[in-house]
Formats: sequence, C-alpha cells, structure tokens
Amino acid sequence: MLGAGALACLTVTDCLFCRIAAGSVPAHLVLADELTLAFLDARPLFPGHVLVIPREHHETLADLPAGLTGPLFERVRRLSAALPAALGAQGTFVALNNVVSQSVPHLHVHVVPRTKGDGLRGFFWPRGRYSGDDEAEQYARRIRAALAGGGSAEGSDQG
Amino acid sequence: MLGAGALACLTVTDCLFCRIAAGSVPAHLVLADELTLAFLDARPLFPGHVLVIPREHHETLADLPAGLTGPLFERVRRLSAALPAALGAQGTFVALNNVVSQSVPHLHVHVVPRTKGDGLRGFFWPRGRYSGDDEAEQYARRIRAALAGGGSAEGSDQG
Repeated sequence: MLGAGALACLTVTDCLFCRIAAGSVPAHLVLADELTLAFLDARPLFPGHVLVIPREHHETLADLPAGLTGPLFERVRRLSAALPAALGAQGTFVALNNVVSQSVPHLHVHVVPRTKGDGLRGFFWPRGRYSGDDEAEQYARRIRAALAGGGSAEGSDQG
Repeated sequence: MLGAGALACLTVTDCLFCRIAAGSVPAHLVLADELTLAFLDARPLFPGHVLVIPREHHETLADLPAGLTGPLFERVRRLSAALPAALGAQGTFVALNNVVSQSVPHLHVHVVPRTKGDGLRGFFWPRGRYSGDDEAEQYARRIRAALAGGGSAEGSDQG
C-alpha cells in the first residue's frame, strides 16, 4: 500500500498541470477558484488560447467525478463568452483530447479564440460516410449498449 | 412583435438539429432524454462519431443557460467513456465550434473515437509562442477583465 501511495504521489508531483495548480510552476492565470484553474497555453494556436483544468489530478474526461463536470464546463462556457469580448474575436474552438493526442495526462480543455479567415478550419480532416443506414445503426447500437453498461456487445439486429 | 416571433419560429423550424430533436428528421440516436440528444454525425471523422446537443435551440456555448451546461457535458462525459468501450477505441476527441467553423447554428459537441495511428492529429496546426512574459500577461489581463465583466478593457500594467 505504501508503495502504491508513493507511486501515485510521484505521478502527481511529476504532472506539469498539478505543479501549475500548486503554484510551483508559473503560468499566466486567467481564472482560479477552489475547483478549477485557467491559464494561457504556452504554445497557443492563437494568442489568448486558454487551458481550463480541474485542480484535482484526473487524466481524462471519463475519469472526472460527475460532480466536477458541471463546474469545469461552466468555466469553459464563461471563457467561451469572455474570449471574443476580450480579444475582438468572433468565436471560439473548444476541444479536449482523451488519451490519444493528449500531450499532458491531466484533463485540460482548450478554449481557442477564432476569427473568420484565421486559417484554422474546425474540421478539415476528410469526413467519411456510412455505407448505409444498416452500418450506421450497427454503430449506434454498440454505443447505446455501452452507455447502458453493456460494454461493446453487438446485439441482435432488432436492438 | 408578431413579426419577430414568426421569424424566431421560422429559424427554429429551419434548424436541422431542432428537427432531429422533434423527430421530424431521422437520425441514429444513441441517447435521448428530456434535456439532450446524442446521435451519429452523418459524415463522421471515424465511424461512431457522435454529436451531443441540447434539445432547446441555443446557438453557442455562451448562449447555453448555466443550468444546462452541467447536464449537457455530463452526457458528453458518459459518451467519452462509452465510445472506447463500444468501439474498441483508445481515446476520444471532444470538440465544439462556436460561430466560426460552426456548420449548424445549434450548439453541438462532437465526441469522436480515437485510436493511435488513426491519422487524426489532435492539434497539428502550427503553434505559436508569445514574444515573452509581457505579451502573454497582456493577453491574460484582457481575458481576466472580460471574465470580470470589464469587456476588452486593456488596463494598466499593474492589472
């Protein structure tokens, strides 16, 4: 037990965002309260690009306690209103990566100011299509089953 | 007044996602409750790409009533756990566009299954840097002022 505790402590201590939350690594804060912190991304997509984090170390959105989800995204919501007002932007891009493409394993929500013609296309990756309703419904059914706690069960066609 | 009301009604009627919420346009639903709806994006980045919307017509995250923010993102959180379980994915990409790059002007949160090597890099746009702490702090100050209700005021250096 002691070993596991020490390992967890080491993990948290090594976490850049925990260090920012603890005040031991400096950051340009824009918001700080008992539950969350928001600060400038040091390598912004555009100036004013902000990261919003829970103070507690949770790696992904799925790991976040349900009671923290509302408060975290309420701060994200406020920042999505504040950035255009602050920076003369027209909109925002809000995004988070869970596990894949996640640079720091401490949940962080990007809020990025957007201006028409800024060159950042929201979803400019190639988009696909389902072969038809049957294929789409197969995927929908698998997701519904996982939401219901049934894992990835691929049930009957009458799901 | 009647004219304005009719216009608002027309706007809502014309909204694709309001029509899906009303059941008048079909979609592959994965979740439906009194406040929210989640369904497959018809043109997925990867199969299983889901959109989560509030049933009520709100255009952007900033427009969303505070009381809906928690419930909406609690559904997003659940989906971010369910998609990997359902689809054998390793992670998820969660994103929303406000105004700029927003294809349908009804708030919608993308939840996209991610797998290492899937070719979708999370933030592969060129990232910038601030010229130094002074420039960064100027941006942070403007955002803090907007959060505090002070608009885009660019106050003193001692902000």
